[in-house]
Amino acid sequence: MSNSFGNLFRFTIFGQSHAPAIGVTVEGLPAGSPVDLAALQAFLDRRAPGKSPLTTARKEADVPELLSGLGPDGRTCGSPLTFLIRNGDQRSRDYEPLRYVPRPGHADFPAMLRFGESRDYAGGGQFSGRLTAPLCIAGGIALQQLAAAGIRVEARILSIGGERDPERFAETIFTAAGEGDSVGGVIECTILGCPPGIGEPMFGGLENRIAQAVFGIPAVKGIEFGAGFRAAEMTGSAHNDPFIPGPEGRILTEGNNHGGILGGMSTGMPIVFRAAVKPTPSIALEQRSVDIRTGEAVPLQITGRHDPCIVPRAVPCMEAAAAAALYDALLERRCS
Amino acid sequence: MSNSFGNLFRFTIFGQSHAPAIGVTVEGLPAGSPVDLAALQAFLDRRAPGKSPLTTARKEADVPELLSGLGPDGRTCGSPLTFLIRNGDQRSRDYEPLRYVPRPGHADFPAMLRFGESRDYAGGGQFSGRLTAPLCIAGGIALQQLAAAGIRVEARILSIGGERDPERFAETIFTAAGEGDSVGGVIECTILGCPPGIGEPMFGGLENRIAQAVFGIPAVKGIEFGAGFRAAEMTGSAHNDPFIPGPEGRILTEGNNHGGILGGMSTGMPIVFRAAVKPTPSIALEQRSVDIRTGEAVPLQITGRHDPCIVPRAVPCMEAAAAAALYDALLERRCS
Amino acid sequence: MSNSFGNLFRFTIFGQSHAPAIGVTVEGLPAGSPVDLAALQAFLDRRAPGKSPLTTARKEADVPELLSGLGPDGRTCGSPLTFLIRNGDQRSRDYEPLRYVPRPGHADFPAMLRFGESRDYAGGGQFSGRLTAPLCIAGGIALQQLAAAGIRVEARILSIGGERDPERFAETIFTAAGEGDSVGGVIECTILGCPPGIGEPMFGGLENRIAQAVFGIPAVKGIEFGAGFRAAEMTGSAHNDPFIPGPEGRILTEGNNHGGILGGMSTGMPIVFRAAVKPTPSIALEQRSVDIRTGEAVPLQITGRHDPCIVPRAVPCMEAAAAAALYDALLERRCS
Amino acid sequence: MSNSFGNLFRFTIFGQSHAPAIGVTVEGLPAGSPVDLAALQAFLDRRAPGKSPLTTARKEADVPELLSGLGPDGRTCGSPLTFLIRNGDQRSRDYEPLRYVPRPGHADFPAMLRFGESRDYAGGGQFSGRLTAPLCIAGGIALQQLAAAGIRVEARILSIGGERDPERFAETIFTAAGEGDSVGGVIECTILGCPPGIGEPMFGGLENRIAQAVFGIPAVKGIEFGAGFRAAEMTGSAHNDPFIPGPEGRILTEGNNHGGILGGMSTGMPIVFRAAVKPTPSIALEQRSVDIRTGEAVPLQITGRHDPCIVPRAVPCMEAAAAAALYDALLERRCS
Repeated sequence: MSNSFGNLFRFTIFGQSHAPAIGVTVEGLPAGSPVDLAALQAFLDRRAPGKSPLTTARKEADVPELLSGLGPDGRTCGSPLTFLIRNGDQRSRDYEPLRYVPRPGHADFPAMLRFGESRDYAGGGQFSGRLTAPLCIAGGIALQQLAAAGIRVEARILSIGGERDPERFAETIFTAAGEGDSVGGVIECTILGCPPGIGEPMFGGLENRIAQAVFGIPAVKGIEFGAGFRAAEMTGSAHNDPFIPGPEGRILTEGNNHGGILGGMSTGMPIVFRAAVKPTPSIALEQRSVDIRTGEAVPLQITGRHDPCIVPRAVPCMEAAAAAALYDALLERRCS
Repeated sequence: MSNSFGNLFRFTIFGQSHAPAIGVTVEGLPAGSPVDLAALQAFLDRRAPGKSPLTTARKEADVPELLSGLGPDGRTCGSPLTFLIRNGDQRSRDYEPLRYVPRPGHADFPAMLRFGESRDYAGGGQFSGRLTAPLCIAGGIALQQLAAAGIRVEARILSIGGERDPERFAETIFTAAGEGDSVGGVIECTILGCPPGIGEPMFGGLENRIAQAVFGIPAVKGIEFGAGFRAAEMTGSAHNDPFIPGPEGRILTEGNNHGGILGGMSTGMPIVFRAAVKPTPSIALEQRSVDIRTGEAVPLQITGRHDPCIVPRAVPCMEAAAAAALYDALLERRCS
Repeated sequence: MSNSFGNLFRFTIFGQSHAPAIGVTVEGLPAGSPVDLAALQAFLDRRAPGKSPLTTARKEADVPELLSGLGPDGRTCGSPLTFLIRNGDQRSRDYEPLRYVPRPGHADFPAMLRFGESRDYAGGGQFSGRLTAPLCIAGGIALQQLAAAGIRVEARILSIGGERDPERFAETIFTAAGEGDSVGGVIECTILGCPPGIGEPMFGGLENRIAQAVFGIPAVKGIEFGAGFRAAEMTGSAHNDPFIPGPEGRILTEGNNHGGILGGMSTGMPIVFRAAVKPTPSIALEQRSVDIRTGEAVPLQITGRHDPCIVPRAVPCMEAAAAAALYDALLERRCS
Repeated sequence: MSNSFGNLFRFTIFGQSHAPAIGVTVEGLPAGSPVDLAALQAFLDRRAPGKSPLTTARKEADVPELLSGLGPDGRTCGSPLTFLIRNGDQRSRDYEPLRYVPRPGHADFPAMLRFGESRDYAGGGQFSGRLTAPLCIAGGIALQQLAAAGIRVEARILSIGGERDPERFAETIFTAAGEGDSVGGVIECTILGCPPGIGEPMFGGLENRIAQAVFGIPAVKGIEFGAGFRAAEMTGSAHNDPFIPGPEGRILTEGNNHGGILGGMSTGMPIVFRAAVKPTPSIALEQRSVDIRTGEAVPLQITGRHDPCIVPRAVPCMEAAAAAALYDALLERRCS
């Protein structure tokens, strides 16, 4: 099902932006696995809005309630973990004008055709970026399991609106916001400490899995591993990473154009990927759309609070998606 | 399982480069679906080697034998289709020297650790590009079903070795080959005629599915949809595609930065994605590797025939992967 | 995952008897499907305890809260439905004595070995019969969709403790209860109105699916379709149901030894199966067990309130399991 | 997909009785697993026809060809195993008369409605008992893995046509055959040596899995575990198996009414189940059917060779189905 991800470590996200709640059920964590709820909360806080002047002011408590699966000793009992986040701060403004007028860059239009009259259009419904909170819960738990295995997942912003100097990220966002506009960016994620031989051939490779997870984050429009698109411009002799003897009998590569993955499997080198995040589609500037009832062109004005740039909040989401994909592959390795 | 792809339209690839055979079992095609074996063969021929001076001279017959699933009327009987390709042309040259010395850029090293002593290292084993033949069988069947629904999938080379002028592709490849080297490239795939509302939210979106399938093609290191990585440098006002009234009451977008997909679902606009294909890792130039038994650096010389550029042969593979992913989503739409 | 059932109509149950809550996420219901919450509650009430003198006095409110997936029009919006039941009535009695002394007939012993020290042993944990409430939510929704398609699922008690006269069921139960003992029974489930051709060959047949679902109800130890075990004693000429012309051009069978299923697919005749429910393992009589810490035999006395016979409450569970399995197959038929 | 079974150990059966071939692809066997092809052949021979006067005379070679997945050392290389059996002995007799006249007790009628005009009706098509040969290949491989783990799976005939004395089985079958009729029977399967704690809660329990697999054998109409349907007539005090100290610190139960499974998980006691096999539907006696084109009653005479009792040949199938289900659960245990 489309709201589920993973095979052995599998999670299922539910809820809509303006439903009573959103949440996630996480299955497949071996019984006895420790889950640090405080650390999980700290991870979720990285995604929460209102943390910086760069992000939306909507104050979501986003303190998930744990409904099941964890014992008093903080370890999984073997039953699924379910987390719940109440949707508290639902501004009473009316989404009704958006019911038949799709917002450019949003899922509205295909959702109208896919789900019909019954679709939940308030606040983006099931397509709301808010649904990345349960993704971060599941991924945050995976991150903890990976950390216990010596594997660290870290994402960072590489560029925002084309600007690659971190000191100018804020300025770029403020400028766009001031113009009623928005910007996107590129996030790079690095995974350190992954032992070689994790991942499967063909459609179960780390690239396949990570890509499937990462495209579950709204606004992601591209992903590349290692040298990525630049590899397409290189010669084989420049792109191939030679194998070299490393410390303690390990075998390393000189360079990491392969991004830590060959044949879908980890090589032991850092796993590196980059994802392109498009600019927030909700902008204050007037846009053009069509009323699907009449088929006539209408101007569209989106009101309310919106992040002029979701890239900062997408950073932990990227870590969460990558961790979920990798931890699933790690479990699979144990029985294969 | 990693050799399988899809949910309702599901195929499972088997075989290794030097096993008795490779093949594929295709499940989920509705009973009564026509399959044109001659057209399928023509599609497979586009992937076959030896078709042009640019590709390897290995002459694989690659005429699959159909074992089951199709009636004398050329329609599926409701049982899985299984196709078999015998591995005829196995040069007797010895892969033994490669057993313990991983080739840079290949799956050898992680495969050694993942599969151990029992791995099949001859000719790339299960990681051989030869396994894209069964992918093309499954995808070729999907292409036919999509065509019957008015959907056309077409891929083309966008650049080779950084060169974007098609008239100079051959020259670029010959130059690399002459230097004992190889080049990669970028392939763009366009899907026309897909009705809006196909695809699912979150992890079942068209981007997720297509990415999962496309990374199943060896050598793919990146994928982007619509404006892709360029979107990360745009403002929202420039990136958002306004909705406009189209002919016959249809609703279109002005521009296609979204690449025909919003919220994981088709919008009715052309679906456009690009994939980065790395340069062929097998090159004639001497490379550096390590003997995993001794941990010592050793020079590595790869002999035999190898495509100096696999991009031309990857074009139909890209169509096949995209078609399989889309057709699966199309079937899913029927019951949802 | 083991807490999930179904392919297109898929539900995932979470929670333990004494966790904060239990619940279920239901995916795959086509957008726009009506869900009648009042009718669902009425269905759940059939399973609830305390409804008759024959069942446990524990008063669970069992009024599920709907968290997501349904619009104000009572129709599914295309996002998963999640239901929550708070575990209110948790008697403070201590389950600690049961931590290391497995109760005969319960899951305790293998759960100790499967889940280790972290297992939740309070109130049966994830193995509690209480988890059939979320099963009934998911199945109850399936029942409504089937009803809309003209398909009716009805289960009834065939025998209790070997007694086949319904008028003596209560007496049989009271007698057992009075002796500190318990009884089981046989439930027969009949599905009327299922069109022919639903279900798939081999492992996706209606028998496979229904059996997989029904064995998810704790205490079920056997299932048979149509003549079932009696078929093993019949000759082919007696067992085969002849085809005969029916009204309105329909084709029926004379007799229904096949139980409405041939080759895993419905024939249009009533689908009939029977399930054996073992006697409640929790009995007041002293039993023998072993302390797994010392390996020594110890007497075991189970206190608290327990149904002397769970068969009456298992009746709606049987309908729920069958409905979920059949509705999943019905959706599958639409895209195949 | 319906032709596939299992999650980690997963096999996909293909082919029809009169297609060029039948076969199976087996995925998920850990790389390096030994597969003894001679022992596998010996196992398949137990299912083969023509071995005794009691079974059909059709002489199928049934010597599968291995296409992939096994190295010269007889160990799996990590790629799927695919086996092929050519359909050699296809009598030229015409199945055309059966095209529109469904045989009682066979899948013909629902298959006509499910698959339409394109269905393969020759020799039972994909519903032929012949498809149990690939099941036995997959299951036979699982049996070998289980044996290596000290687990033994053994099935035997418990009764034929109601007769429970093995010395009179042959007579019972001959009598039925002499009358142009057929008989069914009950098979009991016992699994010894399974460690406790294998299997999952709810829908992933051993009972669920084994039942799902066993109903994939044509003609099975019922399954029961341990005391099974008899449990429904017992009191809890009689049915509950007390735990007792065993040798070497093990914990056993006194009696095995629970059939070695509690809460879906193995207890370490022998796993015991029985399956009801209906009488062969193909009988020489004239039967009544309906021509689906005209809707009129027609007599039906089935010619050709048919087993008057398939129970003996179903014995290894039962072992295969049980082994595949158990081995899948065993692998799952390793990563959970």
